[in-house]
Amino acid sequence: MKIAVFAGDGIGPEVTAQALRVLDALPIKVSLLEGDVGGVAYKRHGHPLPEETLVAAREADAILFGAVGDFDCDHLERHLRPEQAILGLRSELGLFANLRPAKVFPGLEHHSALKPEIAGAIDLLIVRELNGDVYFGEKGTRTTADGLREGYDIMSYDESEVRRIAIAGFEAARKRRGMLCSVDKANVLETSQLWRDVVIETHKDYADIELSHMYVDNAAMQLVKSPGQFDVVVTGNLFGDILSDQASMCVGSIGLLASASLGERQTEYGTFGLYEPIHGSAPDIAGRGIANPMATILSLAELLRHSLGQEALAAQVEAAVAGTLADGVMGGDLGGSAGTAEIGDAVLARL
Amino acid sequence: MKIAVFAGDGIGPEVTAQALRVLDALPIKVSLLEGDVGGVAYKRHGHPLPEETLVAAREADAILFGAVGDFDCDHLERHLRPEQAILGLRSELGLFANLRPAKVFPGLEHHSALKPEIAGAIDLLIVRELNGDVYFGEKGTRTTADGLREGYDIMSYDESEVRRIAIAGFEAARKRRGMLCSVDKANVLETSQLWRDVVIETHKDYADIELSHMYVDNAAMQLVKSPGQFDVVVTGNLFGDILSDQASMCVGSIGLLASASLGERQTEYGTFGLYEPIHGSAPDIAGRGIANPMATILSLAELLRHSLGQEALAAQVEAAVAGTLADGVMGGDLGGSAGTAEIGDAVLARL
Ligand SMILES: CC(C)[C@H](C(=O)O)[C@@H](O)C(=O)O
Ligand SMILES: CC(C)[C@H](C(=O)O)[C@@H](O)C(=O)O
Repeated sequence: MKIAVFAGDGIGPEVTAQALRVLDALPIKVSLLEGDVGGVAYKRHGHPLPEETLVAAREADAILFGAVGDFDCDHLERHLRPEQAILGLRSELGLFANLRPAKVFPGLEHHSALKPEIAGAIDLLIVRELNGDVYFGEKGTRTTADGLREGYDIMSYDESEVRRIAIAGFEAARKRRGMLCSVDKANVLETSQLWRDVVIETHKDYADIELSHMYVDNAAMQLVKSPGQFDVVVTGNLFGDILSDQASMCVGSIGLLASASLGERQTEYGTFGLYEPIHGSAPDIAGRGIANPMATILSLAELLRHSLGQEALAAQVEAAVAGTLADGVMGGDLGGSAGTAEIGDAVLARL
Repeated sequence: MKIAVFAGDGIGPEVTAQALRVLDALPIKVSLLEGDVGGVAYKRHGHPLPEETLVAAREADAILFGAVGDFDCDHLERHLRPEQAILGLRSELGLFANLRPAKVFPGLEHHSALKPEIAGAIDLLIVRELNGDVYFGEKGTRTTADGLREGYDIMSYDESEVRRIAIAGFEAARKRRGMLCSVDKANVLETSQLWRDVVIETHKDYADIELSHMYVDNAAMQLVKSPGQFDVVVTGNLFGDILSDQASMCVGSIGLLASASLGERQTEYGTFGLYEPIHGSAPDIAGRGIANPMATILSLAELLRHSLGQEALAAQVEAAVAGTLADGVMGGDLGGSAGTAEIGDAVLARL
C-alpha cells in the first residue's frame, strides 16, 4: 500500500506529522511517497504542483494532504498560486466527489455559535462535485464593446457529470438515513435546471431514497435555522464550496473535521482518493506547535476506510480521537491548552 | 408622489394591505398605481410581468412589492414563472443595488438559532449587486461533442457594473461604522478578480473607509461564527443571494426584515426604488390572516426614506413597529398569536 503525503504550507507539515505517527503505529505496512505542493512547492520548484508531485500522486493508492496557502504568493499569477495545487490535483486525478461529514462530537455542542440543541442535532454529509461547474469552465478577461474591462467565467455541467455525483449522493444516503437533498438554483440557472433534471432521472434507480430539492439561498438559511433536517446534501462545486464551509462552522470545531475527495479509479484495496483536514494552512499559528492535528488524523482514518479497505483500523483511529477528546485533551481551538505533539501523544496512547 | 403597489402571490396581498393602511394614516398625499405580478399576473394576463405593470412601475416614484411565487406555476417554462417578475423589474428598471440590513430587534435575540450573545451583536448591511453576474448572462442548454445534454450560464461583470455597486457599498459604509467587506471568489473566478481589482481602485476615493476582502466560503463561515464583525458587505448577485438569506436567518426573525432595491434614476423626491419584505409568498399560510406584515411595513418605511425623502415619517413608522414589538404584539413567526390585521391595528395605534 502506497500513500502519497503532501504536507504543503503553514500548519500542514505539523499536523501531517502527527497523522504519520498514528499511521506508523498501525499494524499495516505502508510505503510513503512525499511531494511538495502549494507555496512551498512554488518556492522550491517554481510551480505549486510540480510534475514529480503529480507522478507520486498517480503512483499512490491514496493521498494524505495537509493544507496549501501562503500570503507570500498572493501577488503571483493565478496559475502559480498555492490553491492551484489542490485544484490541479482534483482535476488531473479526476477526484470528482468531495465528501464532507459534519457532526458534533458529543460534549462539544457548546463550541458552536449555534444554540447547543441545534448544533447537537447536526449529522449531515455534504457531497460536493469537484471537477466541473464555474471552477473549470473557460474564463478570462476581455474588453466590452464600450471598451471596458470585463471578467467572465463559464458555468456548466453536462449530464454525465451530474449523474456520477448524483449516484455518489444516493449511494451515501443509502448508507445513512436514506434522505438526499439536492441543492441548486434552478429558478435562475440553466446549469441548475439540467442538474435538477438529471438528479430526478437518476432517482429512478434509487426509489428507496427520499429525494428533495432546495434552492441554494434557502439551503443557506436552513443550515442556520435547523441543520438537523439534513442527511445527505448533494450539490455543485461552487455551491458546495460555500455550503460545506458554512456547515462545518455550524458544527463549531473546525479543527476536528476531515474530508475525502474520491475519483472513479479503483485500487487494489479500495477507491483512490485524497484526504485533507478542512481547516486551511493557518499561517498565523504555523510553526508554533499549537495547531490541532485531529482533523488530519481523522482524515487518515477516512483514507484507511475508503482507499485502503481498512474499516476496522479506521474505526480504531476514530475511537482514539473521540477518547482523547473525552479525556479533555483539547487544542487551543477548543479552548484547551494541548499542543500539536501532545495531542498526537494522547491519540497514540489511546491506540 | 406616486407609489406602484404590486402585491403579488401568496401572503403578498395580505401583508401589503396592512402597509397601505399605515401609509394611509401618514400626513402625506400619495397616489397609488396597482399592478399584477407573479403567478397571479400569469393567470390573469398570461405573463408574470405584464406590460401594464411595467408601465405603472415606470410612472411611479417607488414600488411597494409584496411577494411572488406559486407552486401552480412550477411546470411553466422559465420565462413564464413568477420569479421572472422580480428579475424582470430589477433589470428593466436598472435596480442594481439591493440593500438588506440585518439587525436583531432588542429583546428578540433568543429567536435566532445562534446563541443570543452572537445574534445580538449582528448589525450589518448587505449590498448586493442585482443587474449582472451569472443571473443575466447568456444561458441555455446545448449538446456536447459526445452528444450529451449540457446546461451553461455565463458569469461576468464589467468594470462599470462593479464600480457603481462598490460606490453604493462605500457610501453606505460612510453612513454607518466605516467598514466595507467585499466578498468574492478571486482565487478561482476571473469575474471575481476583476471585481476585486475595481473595488480596490474605487477605494482610492474612499480612503476614510476600512476595506477588507473575503472569499465567499470564508464569509459563509464568518457569518455563522461571528456575524458581529461585519458592518457593510458588498458582493455580486449570486453570492449576495446566498449570503443575504443566510444573514437574515442569523437574525432569527425573518418576518421583520425589509429590503430596498435602488436604481440610478433620481425622482423629484429621492432615488427610485423597489421595496419588499425578504420573506417569500409563503403559500402554506396564505389567505389565513396570520402572516406577519411587519417586514412589509418596514419596507414602506425604507420607501419613505429613500424614494420619497420622508426621513421623519420613516423613523416614525419604524418606531411604531418597534413599539408594537416591545408591547409583545407578535405574529406566529415569533411565537405570538397576533394575526395580520391585529398587528396592523397595533402599529396604527402606536402611530
Ligand atoms: C482553495 C480553494 C480553491 C478551494 C475551493 O474553492 O475549492 C477551497 O476553498 C476548498 O473548498 O477546498
Ligand atoms: C426569486 C429569486 C429569483 C430571487 C433571486 O435569486 O434573486 C430571490 O431569491 C431573491 O433573493 O430576491
